Amino acid sequence: MALQDLRAGTRNEEGIARAMEKLKAQFGERFQTGEAIRHQHAHTLTYIPPQLPDGVVFAESADDVKEVVRCCAALKVPVIPFGTGSSLEGQVNAPSGGISIDFSKMNRILSVNAEDLDCTVEPGVTREQLNVHLRDTGLFFPIDPGANASIGGMASTRASGTNAVRYGTMKDNVLSVTAVTASGEEIRTARRARKSSAGYDLTRLFVGAEGTLGVLTSVTLRLQGIPAVIAGGVCGFPTLRDASNAVIMTIQLGIPVARIELVNALQIRACNAYSGLSLIEQPTLFVEFHGSEDSVKLQSEEFSAVVAECGGGAFDWTSDPQARAKLWKARHDVYFSAKSLRSGCNVIATDVCVPISRFADCVAETEDDINAHGLTGPIVGHAGDGNFHVSLVIDDTDPAELAKAEAFVARLNTRALAMDGTCTGEHGIGQGKIPYLERELGGAVDLMRQVKRALDPDNIFNPGKIFHLD
Amino acid sequence: MALQDLRAGTRNEEGIARAMEKLKAQFGERFQTGEAIRHQHAHTLTYIPPQLPDGVVFAESADDVKEVVRCCAALKVPVIPFGTGSSLEGQVNAPSGGISIDFSKMNRILSVNAEDLDCTVEPGVTREQLNVHLRDTGLFFPIDPGANASIGGMASTRASGTNAVRYGTMKDNVLSVTAVTASGEEIRTARRARKSSAGYDLTRLFVGAEGTLGVLTSVTLRLQGIPAVIAGGVCGFPTLRDASNAVIMTIQLGIPVARIELVNALQIRACNAYSGLSLIEQPTLFVEFHGSEDSVKLQSEEFSAVVAECGGGAFDWTSDPQARAKLWKARHDVYFSAKSLRSGCNVIATDVCVPISRFADCVAETEDDINAHGLTGPIVGHAGDGNFHVSLVIDDTDPAELAKAEAFVARLNTRALAMDGTCTGEHGIGQGKIPYLERELGGAVDLMRQVKRALDPDNIFNPGKIFHLD
Repeated sequence: MALQDLRAGTRNEEGIARAMEKLKAQFGERFQTGEAIRHQHAHTLTYIPPQLPDGVVFAESADDVKEVVRCCAALKVPVIPFGTGSSLEGQVNAPSGGISIDFSKMNRILSVNAEDLDCTVEPGVTREQLNVHLRDTGLFFPIDPGANASIGGMASTRASGTNAVRYGTMKDNVLSVTAVTASGEEIRTARRARKSSAGYDLTRLFVGAEGTLGVLTSVTLRLQGIPAVIAGGVCGFPTLRDASNAVIMTIQLGIPVARIELVNALQIRACNAYSGLSLIEQPTLFVEFHGSEDSVKLQSEEFSAVVAECGGGAFDWTSDPQARAKLWKARHDVYFSAKSLRSGCNVIATDVCVPISRFADCVAETEDDINAHGLTGPIVGHAGDGNFHVSLVIDDTDPAELAKAEAFVARLNTRALAMDGTCTGEHGIGQGKIPYLERELGGAVDLMRQVKRALDPDNIFNPGKIFHLD
Repeated sequence: MALQDLRAGTRNEEGIARAMEKLKAQFGERFQTGEAIRHQHAHTLTYIPPQLPDGVVFAESADDVKEVVRCCAALKVPVIPFGTGSSLEGQVNAPSGGISIDFSKMNRILSVNAEDLDCTVEPGVTREQLNVHLRDTGLFFPIDPGANASIGGMASTRASGTNAVRYGTMKDNVLSVTAVTASGEEIRTARRARKSSAGYDLTRLFVGAEGTLGVLTSVTLRLQGIPAVIAGGVCGFPTLRDASNAVIMTIQLGIPVARIELVNALQIRACNAYSGLSLIEQPTLFVEFHGSEDSVKLQSEEFSAVVAECGGGAFDWTSDPQARAKLWKARHDVYFSAKSLRSGCNVIATDVCVPISRFADCVAETEDDINAHGLTGPIVGHAGDGNFHVSLVIDDTDPAELAKAEAFVARLNTRALAMDGTCTGEHGIGQGKIPYLERELGGAVDLMRQVKRALDPDNIFNPGKIFHLD
């Protein structure tokens, strides 16, 4: 966070003016400069104030992307890729102005190789669109960050979500990308084999680079077979530590749980009120198992034994789709249920991730911190990964509340780093987490700067994100 | 392969002489220059001729590594990290001379965090050493490339092996590394959280970089719970395609098979003779399941159904450790059993990896190629990944045979690339695969060069590997 770090970059006014002229001539109606559209393309789901691009190109092909990059590279004008605008740390802001590339029209599914469990898509394809398309093949793309984000955006922020505990994050599920580099050429980072040790892992370099090293033009993804049966349920625990112990034991036993989410007591209250659940207000695990009928039964039984050993309450599981859907809809709607805890307020969603052995400590200390400072901030966590979110419900028009929220986020990050954790498990650095990245990785950030300077010498790709170059 | 590409680099004679003097003064007996030791440190398990370093430092700490790198960086002298010397593509050769850093004395296990399922080790720790150390914790490190390689070497070549189909490769199992960079400073690429989206994925950049971007000083690894039960068996198929179809179906159904290895008829004959098995000489799958007693039973039954559907023979599985051990020892000994097919000959182990839908085609065409050219080359494959090895059994003192082998490897790589595969699934590029990397990734190799130049401007780290800079 740290609003003070939301620097306005230097604007290359002359270059921007010339780029605007050229792009207008080239793209006509597909180049937009109206305030509303520019505002929408600097939209963010947090409190970070928008910094508008100067214009938006609605790209329809890799060739369009090449043209924009070539134009902007020649004139040293920033290029900011835009998927659906669901990023949370200011990733689509334009602190030095420049051109936003909107990918909503680059939303073709280019190929699906069912036997190889992979597909190649344009960056603007959203995960829901992809899964609807895949349904008849018996395959699905498992990464689910909550929002119906674009695949390009998810790759760029190294997104994950509720079922990363079983299926991994975007790091694990991108086989290769094509990208337009600073030279205006399109490169492909890898072939379609499921593994390779052929040279530097450029795929993983682009995944999580937040558009600062080049602009993605396609993404090849690993897919999974749709499980024959999905079962799940909820289980309450007397304390956070008991719930965390159940998670640790589940992972250690190798029970291939597909989702294991911790929801704290305050968030349960919010879910009960907003989503019509009637759960006891206590630390609760939402779990889900994927497999054959026999396999989910076995997993559920093994998990029940874990729950019993860790002092949890009754664990009722079901493979009834309607009951499951209600539960997970409530989990997905935590943003809105949190918001409903204080009328007229907004939610600041923040995330940290710690080694699982410190998860209970980190969540418990964070709860205490929230209470001690009179904040409203329910907690949900991807417990199997040690990753959790606080949804701070604040009146963001009140500078005092905003300052209090920022101070809280600073303490939260300090706490996570002290536990050998990371300042972001899945939201990325963007602008909001820049100071924490430096504290997390120190000298390694200099290496990142060296890579950035080598691949983007004029700093045209999404400048002012992840780190400052000066 | 392509011996013509094993260039001798330019030697910086003056720098090397001064570095030798300084290192002798600094390290005394821990700096060795005898021919036998230098030869051993350029040893490779393939036909690639050794190119000796000028001296070998036996490092005992990260500080030692820093001292060597600082000395060599100041004098622009190559630094080549050395684990156990089990790499297969000339990774430890010193084409421009320079200093080999031997890690056999940096073999401490620095920490094991059982609850977090991770550990941190020095690069010289071998995988067998680590697994013996871990035994009492109930955990194990799953990556098994066959050789008792060092963890540093395995990270650097992005190794994998028989159980990557379930547990992934080194890419998936390294949480972070510390490395000494060209500035002589030690950086840490990530914290210990199981996932992170904090900045560029430097961990994955070092994994597979073959020591060309810096020298690893420690590796933090993900661990797995030792399965309560391990079961497995073998199953023959009339054709390669039937066996491959069984693999594809197994993966698509999400049966969490831990190993699924294809062994071709010739290799079965070699195993029967060398390892005292009595299998029918036909394409055969070796499979293994990890889990609870109920879970492995379920997996075995699900797999049996797949086998039946794909026309396979009887699938007998067992969780008896002795029967399993004999089987997998035979699988691990394929190098030796292949070698025994022609007395007085050596084995060239090569590897490619293709999308799984092309696996049967690629293996079948490769068998035909071997037969058409009168070569002896049994095949084993990590079928679940589409990765396979040919063990060419040749008289490598005969230039004509060597040339025939090289021509075969060229055709094998051309075939894999034409199927959208990679020239190496797990051995790395080293020197032997340099020309194929260029054909595989084209312009992306230029990006690798840009990264290399940025992080190692004087090209001191393992020069002449992965790509040529000029």
